[in-house]
Amino acid sequence: MATLTDIGLAAAINILSAIAFLIAFAVLRLQPINDRVYFPKWYLKGVRGSPTRSGTFVHKFVNLNLRSYLRFLEWMPAALRMPEPELIDHAGLDSAVYLRIYLIGLKLFVPMAILAFAILVPVNWTNSGTLENSKVEYSDIDKLSISNIPLGSQRFWAHLVVAYAFTFWTCYVLLKEYEIVASMRLHFLASEKRRPDQFTVLVRNVPPDPDESVSELVEHFFLVNHRDHYLTHQTGFLGLCGDEVDAIEFYTSKIDELSEKEATERETIKHNSKSIMPAAFVSFRTRWGAAVCSQTQQTRNPTLWLTEWAPEPRDVYWQNLAIPFVSLTVRRLTVAVATFFLTFFFMIPIAFVQSLANIEGIEKVVPFLKPIIEEKTIKAFIQGFLPGIALKIFLILLPTILMLMSKFEGFTSLSVLERRSASKYYLFILVNVFLGSIITGTAFQQLNSFIHQSATEIPKTIGVSIPQKATFFITYVMVDGWAGIAGEILRLKPLIIYHLKNFFLVKTEKDREEAMDPGSIDFASSEPQIQLYFLLGLVYAVVTPFLLPFIIIFFALAYAVFRHQIINVYNQEYESGAAFWPDVHGRIITALIISQLLLLGLLSTKHAANSTPLLLVLPVLTIWFHRFCKNRYEPAFVKYPLQEAMMKDTLEHAREPNLDLRAYLLNAYVHPLFKDEDDDDSFSGGGEQEYENKLVPTKRQSRKNTPVPSKYNGSSSPSLPDIVKEQL
Amino acid sequence: MATLTDIGLAAAINILSAIAFLIAFAVLRLQPINDRVYFPKWYLKGVRGSPTRSGTFVHKFVNLNLRSYLRFLEWMPAALRMPEPELIDHAGLDSAVYLRIYLIGLKLFVPMAILAFAILVPVNWTNSGTLENSKVEYSDIDKLSISNIPLGSQRFWAHLVVAYAFTFWTCYVLLKEYEIVASMRLHFLASEKRRPDQFTVLVRNVPPDPDESVSELVEHFFLVNHRDHYLTHQTGFLGLCGDEVDAIEFYTSKIDELSEKEATERETIKHNSKSIMPAAFVSFRTRWGAAVCSQTQQTRNPTLWLTEWAPEPRDVYWQNLAIPFVSLTVRRLTVAVATFFLTFFFMIPIAFVQSLANIEGIEKVVPFLKPIIEEKTIKAFIQGFLPGIALKIFLILLPTILMLMSKFEGFTSLSVLERRSASKYYLFILVNVFLGSIITGTAFQQLNSFIHQSATEIPKTIGVSIPQKATFFITYVMVDGWAGIAGEILRLKPLIIYHLKNFFLVKTEKDREEAMDPGSIDFASSEPQIQLYFLLGLVYAVVTPFLLPFIIIFFALAYAVFRHQIINVYNQEYESGAAFWPDVHGRIITALIISQLLLLGLLSTKHAANSTPLLLVLPVLTIWFHRFCKNRYEPAFVKYPLQEAMMKDTLEHAREPNLDLRAYLLNAYVHPLFKDEDDDDSFSGGGEQEYENKLVPTKRQSRKNTPVPSKYNGSSSPSLPDIVKEQL
Repeated sequence: MATLTDIGLAAAINILSAIAFLIAFAVLRLQPINDRVYFPKWYLKGVRGSPTRSGTFVHKFVNLNLRSYLRFLEWMPAALRMPEPELIDHAGLDSAVYLRIYLIGLKLFVPMAILAFAILVPVNWTNSGTLENSKVEYSDIDKLSISNIPLGSQRFWAHLVVAYAFTFWTCYVLLKEYEIVASMRLHFLASEKRRPDQFTVLVRNVPPDPDESVSELVEHFFLVNHRDHYLTHQTGFLGLCGDEVDAIEFYTSKIDELSEKEATERETIKHNSKSIMPAAFVSFRTRWGAAVCSQTQQTRNPTLWLTEWAPEPRDVYWQNLAIPFVSLTVRRLTVAVATFFLTFFFMIPIAFVQSLANIEGIEKVVPFLKPIIEEKTIKAFIQGFLPGIALKIFLILLPTILMLMSKFEGFTSLSVLERRSASKYYLFILVNVFLGSIITGTAFQQLNSFIHQSATEIPKTIGVSIPQKATFFITYVMVDGWAGIAGEILRLKPLIIYHLKNFFLVKTEKDREEAMDPGSIDFASSEPQIQLYFLLGLVYAVVTPFLLPFIIIFFALAYAVFRHQIINVYNQEYESGAAFWPDVHGRIITALIISQLLLLGLLSTKHAANSTPLLLVLPVLTIWFHRFCKNRYEPAFVKYPLQEAMMKDTLEHAREPNLDLRAYLLNAYVHPLFKDEDDDDSFSGGGEQEYENKLVPTKRQSRKNTPVPSKYNGSSSPSLPDIVKEQL
Repeated sequence: MATLTDIGLAAAINILSAIAFLIAFAVLRLQPINDRVYFPKWYLKGVRGSPTRSGTFVHKFVNLNLRSYLRFLEWMPAALRMPEPELIDHAGLDSAVYLRIYLIGLKLFVPMAILAFAILVPVNWTNSGTLENSKVEYSDIDKLSISNIPLGSQRFWAHLVVAYAFTFWTCYVLLKEYEIVASMRLHFLASEKRRPDQFTVLVRNVPPDPDESVSELVEHFFLVNHRDHYLTHQTGFLGLCGDEVDAIEFYTSKIDELSEKEATERETIKHNSKSIMPAAFVSFRTRWGAAVCSQTQQTRNPTLWLTEWAPEPRDVYWQNLAIPFVSLTVRRLTVAVATFFLTFFFMIPIAFVQSLANIEGIEKVVPFLKPIIEEKTIKAFIQGFLPGIALKIFLILLPTILMLMSKFEGFTSLSVLERRSASKYYLFILVNVFLGSIITGTAFQQLNSFIHQSATEIPKTIGVSIPQKATFFITYVMVDGWAGIAGEILRLKPLIIYHLKNFFLVKTEKDREEAMDPGSIDFASSEPQIQLYFLLGLVYAVVTPFLLPFIIIFFALAYAVFRHQIINVYNQEYESGAAFWPDVHGRIITALIISQLLLLGLLSTKHAANSTPLLLVLPVLTIWFHRFCKNRYEPAFVKYPLQEAMMKDTLEHAREPNLDLRAYLLNAYVHPLFKDEDDDDSFSGGGEQEYENKLVPTKRQSRKNTPVPSKYNGSSSPSLPDIVKEQL
């Protein structure tokens, strides 16, 4: 058991290493030669050019102004200074809202820490003689925690009241945040900028038709069923020919010699009807029309003509557009089962690898290495190193594995893929890091013991161990949180890679541009890690409030560091309009409910049985609160209200009555591989402003729903480039 | 433990009583005097008049044709003869689909019984010597059941394989049925008949506005946001003035002397803005417009301007139209908690009442009755009778209590109220009848023991008791199922009441019409009772197949009886288009999963541990199947596809280009109390066919969204009756 002095020592070490990172960062960032590593965002924005200060040659690479080194923390106020609306404008809503997660940490835990130190710490501390008289080992921290209260004491009422206060405070903060983020999102969506996705709906599972191509079918369907609103559409390419994609990518890598062949390949794909997937991006004349189409069911069979709000063009995950409905449901089941096994049984294959990767195993496979391996120091090294390495490699690969699983599930946009991976990663962390640290043993052993315990025993088993693990988690917060975050700002890996590339490969300014690796917020793996801190904070707030200051420092430091990174470094790949917020909210609620159940378990072992019914009320209220928030705010993240759409349409129509929307949308949703080429074909005919009902030729004999016979047939417009015709 | 002979005896008694009921029915239904009791449906349809056969006076009341008595079961083939489409036409889709529930019972259990008797019964029976050697009491039925297989036997593989077969068969039948019912519903909705609800959307939570009345606000909102589709609307009355409703009902009961006062009251309410609730029935020019509006979110705040598909006019539950969003969520929480306590703790108040209602208690409250009560026979009667009566009264009142709870929850249509009550009643039956019979003890004691048992122990505890309770449930099926259904067709209560009324009250033919009580299918209480038979059938199919024939007889008899009643007796209050099917489907799935878990528990106590992983696959697959069905078929019961709407609109427009929809819809959604009076005011101005955009006067100074200034102001149309103006 760690004493306060131990903790102090560990804190000192971690604070020192964090400060060392920060100083290293302060020094490195001031060197002009590193400018592209620490400020790539500004280069991408075009605000900053290569460092070409007037001065000596040395000045180009090293900053000799000693004064600037003295203010080594000046980036912090600078990072905090940019107001939120400007930040949204600069880095997007996703990034701005992501930062609010850290802010919530501060909003939650600062008042909690104050209340806990004002009430719970004195209540625990003044109860002298309890731990001293018991036979359990204890530390100074335990004297500050609930462990110091004797069984059946009336003092538990204080903890009960504080638990209520914490629950209400958490719910209040979450409610306010949900409200703010929802209105930020709606404001963002309603902002003046026109975006193709506002007018566009993704249609999947277009049924096959013997008479018509996918493109014709889509056009007919929407001309009939959204007569007054349909504008144009673009069908997705390549979904049915994965091999050919690879071929193209292969050719693309040898652009110079193979460009002609590549062009041929592209043409083949364009004209091969089999390579057109049964999915389309359908655009409407108005936002209202798109909002209607995305929210409604089109046909009797709800698995055909599936419409959903189109993701931003950058956000589309093209490979998944063409998966049929039944295949999708089978994939979901498979991945759900796989996630379960991955979470609870991942140790089995790793243990198997570990059993193979011992000295004897290696000697058997590669006998000629035997003399080297038998060397004493090398043997010791391998024996100490090998068992850990399989696990380490697995943990490094885990986010990638989870992302692959999410892709297999068939979601159609990168943002959703990230959110799904984050959910899986959170489950993994919850089971293997949180529960795994509290109840030592593998997740499988835990699962086994939980299955054989009663529903009331589980919270008790975990709850009892909670106070004993406080010091472990304090150390964890310092190592993983403090030093980890300080390491993040240093960007050691991109720094090294950039300089290596710069030294060996970079020839032109464009090469240098490409050598920059700004990176982006990796929502799929970083958000679940933040959630662990929420969980720790909420669980320990009542039990061992001494942990709270460590978590507060983590959130404050992380907030400053990530705000700096978002302003100066990261370059988001897509913008989802903070669509991840319901997930973040839901996971904090999960953490709150876990903390309530564990407190319930802990207090029931403390013979404070009267508290059980009172504590049972808390999860019920919390679940109800969650449902309330879900009904009240989640639609803002899923649907696009018609009133907003209509307002925006009306305004736009008044301001730009002659807007050529067809031309604007023409190439918005083109598969990235065709993007460049197609840009040349920009469709000039769109200027005709065909706002009246438009009809396409049908190849059918009779079609009940087509309102009027065709106005012109397919051959009457031979002047359109083929690609455009295909897209019409 | 009952032997086969015991069961045979019980079966004989129940068969005899069922036959007695059927003969009584056969005799009574042939008497002309009972004609209105046994064939009210035909009277309501106007097909049948009062029995005025030419003949003697006696012939009017008694059927003397002896031959007709001989064919006392002739109603059965007659009931089965009507083809389903005619049945839908005659009695509505709800009734026709309700009958399919019984059909599913037959489709599921007849093949299951055949398979089980072909495979499992021989496997169980041939295992001689196991039960004889054990010390447990056993019966002949146990020899046919899984109890006869010794621990760890390889014969359990047969049960495992059959469990798989049963699961697949159940899922197959359910899938087919869901498909059929969904297409029946879509066909029904697409049928030629025009209905007001096809064009109408219920809008709730209209926000208060200081400048405009609810009616003006609704009109403005929809003219702006559904410009091309909005037609008219009717606001709901009376929601905010519950007292006044009672007043009106009171006056209505004294029509003759108070009709003038009532008229005044009505006028007051119509002109009092406070009595108009913030809800409206908004009608559109096309079904497409209504389908769009009902499926989309209207404003930023998803708790305002809530739109949903309007229920059929008869189906509206007017009292609940005006409940605000926050109040609704609080009500849902309250009812959820209340349902939990009602299900698990209902014995507590009943035990309390029972403890009061003893001899001493009565003597204390009414001391003057002491001499009578002390009388020996009376005392014995009271002592024997009182403890049961509180429970009996509670069970009789239970459906009413559940319906009140559902009403308190705030649902807006009778059909939804019935469905919600059914869900609660199912939970009650599952816990208190099914589990309560298997594990004796109150639900609270069960709950207590379940909480203190591990997740793996619970299925074992229940599973082990399952085979022992087979004889009990066989008796239950015979008494509650066979005799109960045969009693249903006799309609003893309506028969007596009708004749009493006929004798004392009926003066005119209209009185006689009102004395008829055709009743209707009580979905809220009868469907959960059918579900109990599904549960019993699925649970015992593998364990004690001997129970299956009894359940098959129940389903066959019930199918014939209810088909007869639906054709000849019941008169449904509303038509929901089989909207209850997802609930029925979901509960059969629940029963299937319960049966799988109990089999798992039972087999694990039989030391057939190898089977556990194989059996665990079944619930996973079943849950997946449920999700698949939910995604594939449930939308047909919730949403109205746009393609369907557009087809129907186009057809209608072609056939009746001059249809006056406004006049058709004018009085469709009027509060029933105003219905008669308003019919006189039918709005003739609707014939003007204002298909161009229509505008209403606004009282606002400036309104960004109203596209053009008003065409006329409020005073320019003084000729419209006041009531119509209010509704515009």
